[in-house]
Amino acid sequence: MSLTVVGSIAFDSVRTPFGERERMLGGSAVHFALAASFFTEVRVVGPVGDDFTDEHVAVLAERGVITDDIERVPGGETFFWRGHYEYDMNVAHTDETELNVFGGFEPKLSEESRSAEMLFLGNIQPQLQREVRASCDGPRFAALDSMNLWIENDREALIAAIGEVDCVVLNDAEVRMLTDQPNLARAARQLMEMGPRVVVAKQGEYGAALFTESGFFAIPGYPLEDVRDPTGAGDSFAGGFLGYLDGCDRADGAAVDESALRQAMAYGSALASFNVEDFGTDRVRRLTPDEIEERLQDFRRMTQFDVAPAEAK
Amino acid sequence: MSLTVVGSIAFDSVRTPFGERERMLGGSAVHFALAASFFTEVRVVGPVGDDFTDEHVAVLAERGVITDDIERVPGGETFFWRGHYEYDMNVAHTDETELNVFGGFEPKLSEESRSAEMLFLGNIQPQLQREVRASCDGPRFAALDSMNLWIENDREALIAAIGEVDCVVLNDAEVRMLTDQPNLARAARQLMEMGPRVVVAKQGEYGAALFTESGFFAIPGYPLEDVRDPTGAGDSFAGGFLGYLDGCDRADGAAVDESALRQAMAYGSALASFNVEDFGTDRVRRLTPDEIEERLQDFRRMTQFDVAPAEAK
Repeated sequence: MSLTVVGSIAFDSVRTPFGERERMLGGSAVHFALAASFFTEVRVVGPVGDDFTDEHVAVLAERGVITDDIERVPGGETFFWRGHYEYDMNVAHTDETELNVFGGFEPKLSEESRSAEMLFLGNIQPQLQREVRASCDGPRFAALDSMNLWIENDREALIAAIGEVDCVVLNDAEVRMLTDQPNLARAARQLMEMGPRVVVAKQGEYGAALFTESGFFAIPGYPLEDVRDPTGAGDSFAGGFLGYLDGCDRADGAAVDESALRQAMAYGSALASFNVEDFGTDRVRRLTPDEIEERLQDFRRMTQFDVAPAEAK
Repeated sequence: MSLTVVGSIAFDSVRTPFGERERMLGGSAVHFALAASFFTEVRVVGPVGDDFTDEHVAVLAERGVITDDIERVPGGETFFWRGHYEYDMNVAHTDETELNVFGGFEPKLSEESRSAEMLFLGNIQPQLQREVRASCDGPRFAALDSMNLWIENDREALIAAIGEVDCVVLNDAEVRMLTDQPNLARAARQLMEMGPRVVVAKQGEYGAALFTESGFFAIPGYPLEDVRDPTGAGDSFAGGFLGYLDGCDRADGAAVDESALRQAMAYGSALASFNVEDFGTDRVRRLTPDEIEERLQDFRRMTQFDVAPAEAK
């Protein structure tokens, strides 16, 4: 039971209709790790600058995340993102991006990180994802995320990286873009033909869809009335999803099966829904396991229906 | 057990990446009625011109739909729509609209249509919807559809019409537009404050969401790889939904309850998914009750997950 995530560690300045915050701890690896920490032991691999203090390390450490592989780049500054959301919170507007130390990131994994049972390759250059994947000692399950930038500019390397993992976790628009196929079911099948046996298509407020050889599963978004800051929702989903898959590992080391994948979709959705209830990492930091289980029950109630005796005439 | 639908009867000329068809039988009332006909007795109220032949009547009659209230306007022509879909079938492009007899439509309901137990006010002028509603003898359950045109140009009458029905069935974008509220859960609550106790938000390929006083339910879209013609999907959904609600009526005349509403969401989704598998009404015309029940089982399988013993730590 151990999960390594490689990705960005960032400071985010975010404005939404609910307020504005400066330089909150964020980044894909951070949101992922905090979400996953409720289910398993997580190691974070990513670069930070001198502006990353003990206080920031503590946010991760308090949730039991292992921070030994956070790489401090002397004289550098941490990745910075500034963005805002208008009245329609489904669309993020980027105002400023400073890659800083993330621009020259060359992941260095400790022995412990390399030997984790599960590996999540966050949204970094596909070639780096491949190198990290190759350096690991055959995790039981490896997954990756990506983005439109790499689909447009580094497609070949991305397709190679996808061929080397068990699972992709992408936005549905990215699944379509990558395959040049607007029909999601067809697009997902094409991705599976590239190698992965599991395709997860995140659909924002509409929820998420799971494609495997044995079938299709979908879970709706949680109908929140107050979304305060959508930043990190996708990473929290991935963290809940992979974290649960690793944490629910049966004593007999059973393979990741359909039933576990579906439960993981629900846990991922739950973590994503909590993440957006407050700015940055605030909500997940004060989240409790009981709240997660309650939300799982909510997701069950939201999706249940009886099949009546045949009524059609 | 009887359901009256008031709406458009049309000829549709449609081009999609899968082919092109001229002057197929269509219109909201037609797609609605055919879908509902699998569950209950349906009466169609709508205007047609001299170009509407016995052959067209037969399409409805073959499915048991009662066509007595189809109004023939001598010398007139039937509503005509020409449109096409590009590679991304989620967006309809309108090339031509000829309202013809539909432009001067003044619904005239027979005694039988007025006394139906359920009433669906298809997408017509809100003031006409109000008049039809007022002329009926208190149906057990009345629902309406609408569109952006009326939301923009006839908002006040539409809000009055909404206040006089039990249920609205709208696209999620229309729910947001009508309330000027991008958050769907809030928007749905605002609609319920206008009168209806049930709000159904159709979400296209993402499925549909149900808001009631007692909770939230969502069902995903069926993951079809071949969508040949999306025209009429929303009307087929509404027909399956209302048709099932009417048809499943308990002998004791029980109110439309949460359990029945959820099942109706699944039947609506099933009918919509069949409708888009072929051009116009072709697929629904050859549909069988067994196929519907099989698809219901598919929807169950697509949405089921176990809740595991508490794993969070």
